[in-house]
Amino acid sequence: MKIGKETLPRTAISTSDEHAIVVRGLDLSQDLIGKLSFTDYFHLLLTGRPPTPAASAVIDATLVAIAEHGLVPSVQASRMTLAAAPEALQGAVAAGVLGCGSVILGSAEAAGRFLTEVCQKEDGGVVADEAVGEVVRAYRAERRAIPGYGHPLHKGFDPRARRLFEIAAEIGCAGRHIAAAQRAERLLPSLVGKPLSLNVSGAIPAVLLDAGFPLGALKGIPILARTASLIAHLLEEQARPIGFVLSHAGSEAIGYDGPSPDGFRRSEG
Amino acid sequence: MKIGKETLPRTAISTSDEHAIVVRGLDLSQDLIGKLSFTDYFHLLLTGRPPTPAASAVIDATLVAIAEHGLVPSVQASRMTLAAAPEALQGAVAAGVLGCGSVILGSAEAAGRFLTEVCQKEDGGVVADEAVGEVVRAYRAERRAIPGYGHPLHKGFDPRARRLFEIAAEIGCAGRHIAAAQRAERLLPSLVGKPLSLNVSGAIPAVLLDAGFPLGALKGIPILARTASLIAHLLEEQARPIGFVLSHAGSEAIGYDGPSPDGFRRSEG
Amino acid sequence: MKIGKETLPRTAISTSDEHAIVVRGLDLSQDLIGKLSFTDYFHLLLTGRPPTPAASAVIDATLVAIAEHGLVPSVQASRMTLAAAPEALQGAVAAGVLGCGSVILGSAEAAGRFLTEVCQKEDGGVVADEAVGEVVRAYRAERRAIPGYGHPLHKGFDPRARRLFEIAAEIGCAGRHIAAAQRAERLLPSLVGKPLSLNVSGAIPAVLLDAGFPLGALKGIPILARTASLIAHLLEEQARPIGFVLSHAGSEAIGYDGPSPDGFRRSEG
Amino acid sequence: MKIGKETLPRTAISTSDEHAIVVRGLDLSQDLIGKLSFTDYFHLLLTGRPPTPAASAVIDATLVAIAEHGLVPSVQASRMTLAAAPEALQGAVAAGVLGCGSVILGSAEAAGRFLTEVCQKEDGGVVADEAVGEVVRAYRAERRAIPGYGHPLHKGFDPRARRLFEIAAEIGCAGRHIAAAQRAERLLPSLVGKPLSLNVSGAIPAVLLDAGFPLGALKGIPILARTASLIAHLLEEQARPIGFVLSHAGSEAIGYDGPSPDGFRRSEG
Repeated sequence: MKIGKETLPRTAISTSDEHAIVVRGLDLSQDLIGKLSFTDYFHLLLTGRPPTPAASAVIDATLVAIAEHGLVPSVQASRMTLAAAPEALQGAVAAGVLGCGSVILGSAEAAGRFLTEVCQKEDGGVVADEAVGEVVRAYRAERRAIPGYGHPLHKGFDPRARRLFEIAAEIGCAGRHIAAAQRAERLLPSLVGKPLSLNVSGAIPAVLLDAGFPLGALKGIPILARTASLIAHLLEEQARPIGFVLSHAGSEAIGYDGPSPDGFRRSEG
Repeated sequence: MKIGKETLPRTAISTSDEHAIVVRGLDLSQDLIGKLSFTDYFHLLLTGRPPTPAASAVIDATLVAIAEHGLVPSVQASRMTLAAAPEALQGAVAAGVLGCGSVILGSAEAAGRFLTEVCQKEDGGVVADEAVGEVVRAYRAERRAIPGYGHPLHKGFDPRARRLFEIAAEIGCAGRHIAAAQRAERLLPSLVGKPLSLNVSGAIPAVLLDAGFPLGALKGIPILARTASLIAHLLEEQARPIGFVLSHAGSEAIGYDGPSPDGFRRSEG
Repeated sequence: MKIGKETLPRTAISTSDEHAIVVRGLDLSQDLIGKLSFTDYFHLLLTGRPPTPAASAVIDATLVAIAEHGLVPSVQASRMTLAAAPEALQGAVAAGVLGCGSVILGSAEAAGRFLTEVCQKEDGGVVADEAVGEVVRAYRAERRAIPGYGHPLHKGFDPRARRLFEIAAEIGCAGRHIAAAQRAERLLPSLVGKPLSLNVSGAIPAVLLDAGFPLGALKGIPILARTASLIAHLLEEQARPIGFVLSHAGSEAIGYDGPSPDGFRRSEG
Repeated sequence: MKIGKETLPRTAISTSDEHAIVVRGLDLSQDLIGKLSFTDYFHLLLTGRPPTPAASAVIDATLVAIAEHGLVPSVQASRMTLAAAPEALQGAVAAGVLGCGSVILGSAEAAGRFLTEVCQKEDGGVVADEAVGEVVRAYRAERRAIPGYGHPLHKGFDPRARRLFEIAAEIGCAGRHIAAAQRAERLLPSLVGKPLSLNVSGAIPAVLLDAGFPLGALKGIPILARTASLIAHLLEEQARPIGFVLSHAGSEAIGYDGPSPDGFRRSEG
C-alpha cells in the first residue's frame, strides 16, 4: 500500500512500511497497543477517532448485552460445523457468523433506521407522537414489521433493554433516540393493535445513536459481539462435544412425508 | 428421521434406516446410483421428479455456461483463502460461494422474476410489447436495474446467451420466456434510452423457465455451477499458488489517504 | 487476464476477451455449451481434458451416491442459517459447505491416499496382503483410523459402496484400487480386531482412482455433490421452514450445568 | 435449555428462562451489562471467570496488536465478497474470517504450543537452553517451521512483539513463556542456521500464557481481533468501494498459459 499516489483508489484505515504500521494516523506500536481498550480500538477502526467516554461505556454495554444467549441457531450451526470439520476453527466461526442475518441479530440496524426516520420527521417539524405514527403507518403500508419490538421469549419486558437505558441515563447520554424508542413502545398498542415491548435489538441502536455512534456501523455491533460468544462455544465444543447430539435431536424432530418405494420399512412400524 | 409421525414437521427429500437410503421416494442404491446423471439427480433433489430430456439438456447447458469466467472476484477470494488457510478446502469453497450474490451471479433469479412478471401481464390480457413496457416502467419507477441486460465486458453480444437460445430452439423447447426476453431486448433502447443486450444471466432463466424448471430454484444454478469451477481453481492453487500474488497486486493498487503520524516515512518518498 | 506475458504467474483454466471465453483451450460458446454434460465439464475444468466414457459414468455414480443423506449436520446448519438470514441463499449454502470437513465427507480423500499407499507398496514389490498389512500397521502406530471403513448407521454393509463396485465392474473399469479396498476389508478383522465394512467414502476413491480420476481432485467430489443437496434443502426450507424447529429440538436436548445466581428459577422446578 | 436434567449432555456457558439470561452463573442484565468491558466479558465467556487486571490488560493489548494490518488477503477477500453480495454483511465478514487459517493468523496457537512444550521440558528437568534445543530439533526432524518466528515484512524486528513484551514487564506479569520465547530467538540462529526474529504471532501467546490465559483459547484472539477490523473495512467498502478494483488488479497480474483454440485473439497482439 502506498501513501499519496494521486491516481489510486484509497483506503483511510491503515498503511505500513518496514518500520511501522499506521492505523487511522496513529503508530500501532507506539500509540495504540497498551494505550486503549479493544472496544475503543474498534471505534477508532470504524470511525477514525477514539470514542468519548460515554460512547465507550455504551459500546461495551451493548456488546455485552448481545453477545450470548445460549444455544441459538447460529451457535448450533457453528458447533455442528466444528464437530464435522474440527480442523478449521475459523470455518465454524464463519458458519456461526453467517447466521447473523436479517431475522436474527440483524434487526439492530433496521431498528436504528426506524428511530432515525422518526427523528428526521421531528426535525421536519412533525410533533413527536405524530412522527412515530407517520413512520409506523408507512411501515405497515409496506407490510414491514416494526424492527426492535417484540420477542418470542421475553414478552412484555426485555431486561437487557431496560438495563441499557438505565446505563445511558446514569452516564448522561440518554437523548432523542431513546426518547423516540420509548414513545414508540407507548404508542404501538394503539397503532398496531397489540402491545409490543422494546427488545434488546431496539435498545442497542437507541443508546448507541444517542452516544454518537454512526448509524452505518450498527450492524457491526452484534456481529463482533456474537463472534466472542461463538469462540467460547467452540472451545467448549472441543472439550465437551455436543455438535452431533444437537443434529441427532434435530433429525429426530422432523418426519419424512415424501413417497416411499416398495419394501421400505416404515420406521414407525 | 421418521416416516409418518403425524405431529412432526416434515421434509420430503429423503429418509433412511439401517437398510436403505430413500431419496424422493426412490432407493438410492437400487434406483439412482448408476441410473441417472448428476444433473438429473440435481433436478430430482430439487423438484421430486427427474427432468424431461429437454429440461435435462437445458440444465446441463446453463450449468456449463455459467460455471467459469476466469479470475472473477469470488474465485480470487477463494484462492486467497486457500493460500491463508490450506488446511480447509471447504473453507475456501465457502468463501467463493459467498461471492455469488445479488451483484454477481445472483441476477439469474432476478431476471427470472422479471420475465415471469412480463408473462403474467400477458396472461392478464396485456398485449406483448405493452407487457414489457409496463414491467420496465414499474422497475424504473422504483429505480431498479432491468436484471439480465447489459454486461461490462460483452457489450452488445453475449455469445453464451445466443448459444443458449440456439440450443433451446434445436431441442424444441423455446417458448414464451425466451420470446419475452428477446422482446425486452428489442424494446429496451426506446424504453430506457440506451441499448442493453441480453446477458447470460438473462438467458439462463429464459431457457430454464421455458423448459419447465421452477422459478424458485433458479438461484441454485449459478451456485452449483460456480462450485465446480471453484474446486478446479483450488486444485490449481494447490499446485500453482497465486493467492498471495493476487493479494499483493490488490494492495499495490490502493493508496492510503488517512492521516500520517509525525515521522512516518511516506512510501512515495 | 492476459495470454503469454512471460513474467506473470499463470493459470491454465480460462481466459477471455471481448469476443470469447476460452476454458481449457476450448471456446465456451462454440465448443462447450450444449456439447458436454455438467459432469464432464467438471472433469474438464479439473484436469484440462474431458473424461473417458467410463470415468464419466463413475463420476456421475459417485456424485449421486454421496450428495444426499437426510438431515445430516451440514444440512441442519445450512437450514438454520437460512432461517436466520433468508436474504442470502449463498450464505446458507456456504454454512453447509463448511461442514464438509475431515470427520464428515472429508474421508473420501483420506481413503484415496490410503488405497494409493497400498498400491505403491505393491509397486515396490510387497505382495498384496502384506501391502495392506504394512499400511494398516503404520496407520495404527500413529493412532489414525483406517479411512473409508466403518459407518455409524450402515454397519456391515453400505449398499452405496456395493453398488459403486458393481457399476465399475459392469463398465469394465474395476482395477487395483477396488481390489485393494476389498482386500483391506477382508483383512481388517484380523489386523484391527474387529470387522469394519467398507463405506461409501472408501468406495468412492476406489472406483474413481480405477477410472483414472486424479487423487488430488477427490476432495471436490463430496463438496460438489453436497452443494446440490444443500440447494434442494434450502429451497424446501423456503417453502416449508423447519430451521427453527431443528434449533429448538437441539437446545431442548442440552442441559446447563454452570453455576446459578441466587434467585434464578431452575426450570425443572 | 434446562438446568439439571441428569441425563442430558451439558453446556456451562449460559441458560435462560422468561425472567433472566444467566451467563457463567451471573445474571446478564444485573451483573454484567454495564459492569465489565467487552474484553473482560470475552474472558468470562471463554473461561467462566473474569480476568485478573493483568490478564485484562494483556488481552486488550494483544487484540489491538493483531486486529489490523492493511489490505491483507482476508480483508481483500472480504471486501470483494461485499462488492459481489452487498445484501449480506455477515457473508463478507465470514469470507474474511475464513482466511484466519494456519498460514495467516493461525500461528498464534501453534506458537503457544511450541512455548508450552519448551516449558514442559524445563518442568521435566531439562536446563533452559537445552529445552529449546530439544523442541526445535524435534520440529525440524518433522520438517515443521518454528511457529512465531520470522516475518516477510518486519525482518529482524517486529515492533508489535517488542511492545507486547514491554507491557507485560510494566504490569508485572512477564514470566517463563516470555523468557522461553526470547531464549528461542537468541538460540535460533545457531539451531537453524539463520536469524529468525520473534513476530507478533509468537509474542501474543507468550504474553497471554504468562498472564494465565488458557492455551486452548489462543486461537480465538486473532479471530475476534480480525473480526473488528473486517467490520471497519466493510463499512469503508460501503462508502468507498474498492472491491472490484482489487479483483481487477489481481486478474491483470496473472497470465493464461493453457492452450488456445484456433482463432482466439491473443491479447498481447
